[in-house]
Amino acid sequence: MRLTNVLRKIALLGFIWAIAALVLSTSALPQEKAQDPLPSWNGGPAKQAILSFVQKVTEKSSPAYVPPEERLATFDQDGTLWVEHPLYAQAMFALDRIRALAPQHPEWKTRQPFKAVLKNDRKAMAKFTEGDWAKILGATHAGMTTEAFLKIVGDWLGQAKHPRFQRPYTELVFQPMLEVMKYLRNNGFKTYIVTGGGQEFVRVYGERVYGVPPEQVVGTSLATKYEYHNGQPVLMRLPKIFFVDDQAGKAIGINLFIGKRPQAAFGNSTGDRQMLEYTGAGDGARLMMLVLHDDGKREYAYGPAQGLPVTKIGTFTQALCDQAKKQGWVVISMKNDWNKIFAWE
Amino acid sequence: MRLTNVLRKIALLGFIWAIAALVLSTSALPQEKAQDPLPSWNGGPAKQAILSFVQKVTEKSSPAYVPPEERLATFDQDGTLWVEHPLYAQAMFALDRIRALAPQHPEWKTRQPFKAVLKNDRKAMAKFTEGDWAKILGATHAGMTTEAFLKIVGDWLGQAKHPRFQRPYTELVFQPMLEVMKYLRNNGFKTYIVTGGGQEFVRVYGERVYGVPPEQVVGTSLATKYEYHNGQPVLMRLPKIFFVDDQAGKAIGINLFIGKRPQAAFGNSTGDRQMLEYTGAGDGARLMMLVLHDDGKREYAYGPAQGLPVTKIGTFTQALCDQAKKQGWVVISMKNDWNKIFAWE
Repeated sequence: MRLTNVLRKIALLGFIWAIAALVLSTSALPQEKAQDPLPSWNGGPAKQAILSFVQKVTEKSSPAYVPPEERLATFDQDGTLWVEHPLYAQAMFALDRIRALAPQHPEWKTRQPFKAVLKNDRKAMAKFTEGDWAKILGATHAGMTTEAFLKIVGDWLGQAKHPRFQRPYTELVFQPMLEVMKYLRNNGFKTYIVTGGGQEFVRVYGERVYGVPPEQVVGTSLATKYEYHNGQPVLMRLPKIFFVDDQAGKAIGINLFIGKRPQAAFGNSTGDRQMLEYTGAGDGARLMMLVLHDDGKREYAYGPAQGLPVTKIGTFTQALCDQAKKQGWVVISMKNDWNKIFAWE
Repeated sequence: MRLTNVLRKIALLGFIWAIAALVLSTSALPQEKAQDPLPSWNGGPAKQAILSFVQKVTEKSSPAYVPPEERLATFDQDGTLWVEHPLYAQAMFALDRIRALAPQHPEWKTRQPFKAVLKNDRKAMAKFTEGDWAKILGATHAGMTTEAFLKIVGDWLGQAKHPRFQRPYTELVFQPMLEVMKYLRNNGFKTYIVTGGGQEFVRVYGERVYGVPPEQVVGTSLATKYEYHNGQPVLMRLPKIFFVDDQAGKAIGINLFIGKRPQAAFGNSTGDRQMLEYTGAGDGARLMMLVLHDDGKREYAYGPAQGLPVTKIGTFTQALCDQAKKQGWVVISMKNDWNKIFAWE
């Protein structure tokens, strides 16, 4: 191609881009204004905090501007992104697995904690110690390859239903939080799930349900062992905790898996305290939010902050409430801040 | 805006895009053909294996097609992406740190292994056991916050020079491998470093040198502890190995940190064997490559495969060579396959 031809093409391209940009900018403006990125959120300080944070971080002229490749937001899962009552979905999975595996373990009929699960003895189950749960987790989460485990969880998710809502657990995600995740991603953020729950468990549905790929799920993990089955390498799941991604473990896990400090973090319990502290300790604009379950009608109400009932699940203590106030963390009232909780409402 | 106006704008936009696409396609074609994505590679089976693999995985009509979001390639670092002789850069860093810290540790003058380092007793240093190295690592890599460590490494990289090449270590990266990484990324791959070396160490320069951000560096890590300094949360590095990302640990680390199986993996020693096996055990097109250091003139020649000298660093054993042949792993001869080793040549 002769140089003059190349130059002519470049000039033509420049002209076309200029027109395209003009047309796009004039036609896109009214649409943008009309579109609320957080339609399930009522107007108020919580919604405003999100919008204002994103503006501060993304506007190039802002002193708190963060380049897109550094934008990072972390989300707890249970109670923050989906329902955690009356029991974590993963605990429900473990109990269902005990029932499914019982025929291969006749000894469980007379051995605790399995006996209580098989008899559905709710009184005994409510008193399960950490040691009891460790036995249940060992019997249901270990002893298979990583690939086999993913399949078992996927199959369970396909048929299990929440006892109250009678819907798959993956439909019990909070629509307002999905909107926040999407809104942040549309503004250049990488969104990570940082869960006290099982890393591999969440990876099964993280992409489909939250738009979060496996490599962006940080969670509690078991040790695995490299073995050969029929000459092919596999990773066997061992009945041994490798990493506990809860409380201080969440800050440690963020540094270990991501190596960056988030600008925004979302939680709902004392297990998220250190993640929010660690996020808040960075420079510039920061957004720390806690979901308060104060809507017993549409979801659940538990606390014990603000006099809500005390449960074993999701401990939003008064101390956490006080710390939130002191450090400028925004508490999200499900009752007041969300006009919709589930997509299917 | 009236509907007719909107429609007119959409039609105009469509017209503009069509012209733009036409101009772009006709002007881009000759340029594309002329551009070799791997200019530092000589023609031959190694270069051909890379080009053919990428074609198989990216062509939509290919039976081995992989969607972009699943494309993953993992790279060992020492000896695969940069020079590892006469000693890993991180070991050089540790020895330099011992010298720098010596004034604060008068007891090191008479205590091994520190005494040998301070006297530059090469004979004694060559005989260092794993326990000796653990003491050196503990004294140089732990006892500070994660942020302080990143700064110490960054400062060292800014002034340290390789004993033979008299250049910063970050200039001793292999240009052909940078081209492969870039070529894979341009074809939708996520590129990860999976190193037996220190995860935090590599994260200091991974983005700048390799285009690999911190969250895509998997390596050996120390345990950290969440503490408060002056009321601010910090992560303290403990003198305790948390995860060894070498040999079977590389396959375990890939599953732990990424949760996906790579389609391509690059290594240079027995430490990479399991990573290549694990990569090769997946379906579809696979690319496993091993860098053989057989160029004593431009870099180093060590083996002991093909009768090259045996060293403690980078063990490309005869058994690895045999396995490569058996499993179709491609051996890269630095001497024959690379027309350029460093960018500054």
